[in-house]
Amino acid sequence: MIKAYAALEQGGTLEAYEYDPGALAAHQVEIAVEHCGICHSDLSMLNNEWGMTSYPFVPGHEVVGKIVAIGSQVTSLNVGQTVGLGWHSGYCLKCASCHSGDQNLCNDAQGTIIGRHGGFADKVRADESSVIPLPDGLDESMIAPLFCAGVTVFSPLLELNIKPTDTVGIIGIGGLGHLAVQFLRAWGCEVWAFTSSEEKKAEAIELGAHYTVNSKNKDELKALTGKFDLLLSTVNVKLNWNQYLNTLAPKGKLHFVGATLEPLDLNVFSLMSAQRSVSSSPVGSPQTMKTMLEFAKRHHIEPKVERYRFDQVNEAIERLESGKAHYRIVLSRT
Amino acid sequence: MIKAYAALEQGGTLEAYEYDPGALAAHQVEIAVEHCGICHSDLSMLNNEWGMTSYPFVPGHEVVGKIVAIGSQVTSLNVGQTVGLGWHSGYCLKCASCHSGDQNLCNDAQGTIIGRHGGFADKVRADESSVIPLPDGLDESMIAPLFCAGVTVFSPLLELNIKPTDTVGIIGIGGLGHLAVQFLRAWGCEVWAFTSSEEKKAEAIELGAHYTVNSKNKDELKALTGKFDLLLSTVNVKLNWNQYLNTLAPKGKLHFVGATLEPLDLNVFSLMSAQRSVSSSPVGSPQTMKTMLEFAKRHHIEPKVERYRFDQVNEAIERLESGKAHYRIVLSRT
Repeated sequence: MIKAYAALEQGGTLEAYEYDPGALAAHQVEIAVEHCGICHSDLSMLNNEWGMTSYPFVPGHEVVGKIVAIGSQVTSLNVGQTVGLGWHSGYCLKCASCHSGDQNLCNDAQGTIIGRHGGFADKVRADESSVIPLPDGLDESMIAPLFCAGVTVFSPLLELNIKPTDTVGIIGIGGLGHLAVQFLRAWGCEVWAFTSSEEKKAEAIELGAHYTVNSKNKDELKALTGKFDLLLSTVNVKLNWNQYLNTLAPKGKLHFVGATLEPLDLNVFSLMSAQRSVSSSPVGSPQTMKTMLEFAKRHHIEPKVERYRFDQVNEAIERLESGKAHYRIVLSRT
Repeated sequence: MIKAYAALEQGGTLEAYEYDPGALAAHQVEIAVEHCGICHSDLSMLNNEWGMTSYPFVPGHEVVGKIVAIGSQVTSLNVGQTVGLGWHSGYCLKCASCHSGDQNLCNDAQGTIIGRHGGFADKVRADESSVIPLPDGLDESMIAPLFCAGVTVFSPLLELNIKPTDTVGIIGIGGLGHLAVQFLRAWGCEVWAFTSSEEKKAEAIELGAHYTVNSKNKDELKALTGKFDLLLSTVNVKLNWNQYLNTLAPKGKLHFVGATLEPLDLNVFSLMSAQRSVSSSPVGSPQTMKTMLEFAKRHHIEPKVERYRFDQVNEAIERLESGKAHYRIVLSRT
């Protein structure tokens, strides 16, 4: 039996919940969860905002733990190995995206908390293909958030061919943004942090931003016309996107890793006049996760976390909902 | 004196109009116009749709002709040379875009028909930097439309790194679209033409499209979910862009070379789920024009044109406005 924390209904409080995972499949591994981050998408799923939650619902898709069992066909992972698991817990491995190394774009990718039980538990299972060995030299108690928040902001740097000579702006300095600041500083870029919080401005500078700008001040935005090669938006509220488009340099890119339900009401002429583009991406591939871990290790990049015990999970969720967490919350076994 | 055709007021009929261009500047050339295409943007400017027309207004920015005079500092062009001129008639040559070979994105680029008189005339002047020598082997009576319509659809193929293995859709088979079909067929791609006209479907196949699809049929679009690496939209009407987004493959690109005044009401989740992007671009750089001409020559690519004499210019404009031209109109001296 696996001992988990589950919501029995939409928006429900998490309760102790045991389930029988059945026999371990040939291509699966079982991970004893030591640390698990909490992500906004755990909340969205808990509240069935995307209409795809099944209950009982066990959240948790930023897992760090030790492999305690492997299926009969698992060859690249071993019992005892420390590993991480993110948003996806398996891929079809047969489609064009999987064959191209873009498993995160696989239409049949399995979500760690979609139709299966996640990492708010003593154990979680996932396909070998989705489980990432931790390199030595990373503090495993700190890095669970890299497996969703981290790779979500790291993947676009590779996918969009961001260069160390680029000037980049990060919109929203929260769980995702505070990692983006660190990655982009280490990437060699000129880094601007967009936030409306004075406190976060100071923290963004500490994290590596060269400059800060008030994301809600029209005049400050106007002064930045034509400046950015990349704007990475981590927020899930609607901003005046056309105003932001105008801060992009020729060939500049506005990339969304946070999403709003309202459509983007983009002005074609703003895109056309300077050959700008707008794009978005979800998490990252297994290889991108490995590359990210090596990069994080080399540059001493770590999430800032607040720590809770697993049995404090409801308190931790309340803290996340308050919007005051600095910057990411991790549940730990001990 | 230069003998031109000008509108004296917004939307006015073109009339014979003479003006004194003054002394030829050191970096300018004077071109005796032999052929000049008519473009929808000539109409938009004639009607001051973009609020930047000054009258008397001389349209014409798809010029082919012979150089009849060169300024004292012109070194790369000679009197007697056959050349082409497009949307831009000069660049600052000092900004980052100019230095990067993206002169078409220069903020201080001069428009051939913006604040100066265009190619519906016996002569037109432009900076050396914007005037493109014609390679031997192209039919100069046919190719004037390449200098605006042509390069507008050709430039994205280079800028977006379109590969011969890509599957591409061209939305709208008109002046721009019929050139895009030819370029992309020669590029090696699988080419789909989107049009609601049965007549144009047959013509698109003749031009090189492998398949056609009814751009207004929801079911046909739905059957193409996840198919295209590139959708190139040449239309200036609003379509259901989110439906089109869903026909893009993972990492697929929706690129606009036609523009609507209505904002693009894009769904972020459609972009995010498959790492799609939306972009747009204006005309092309001088080097891109040269590359296009060589490519057009090698692959025997030519616009389909209807020909009028310069003194039939008002008739030609009416024909363009009727939407029935096949596919581009060229005014010719003889």
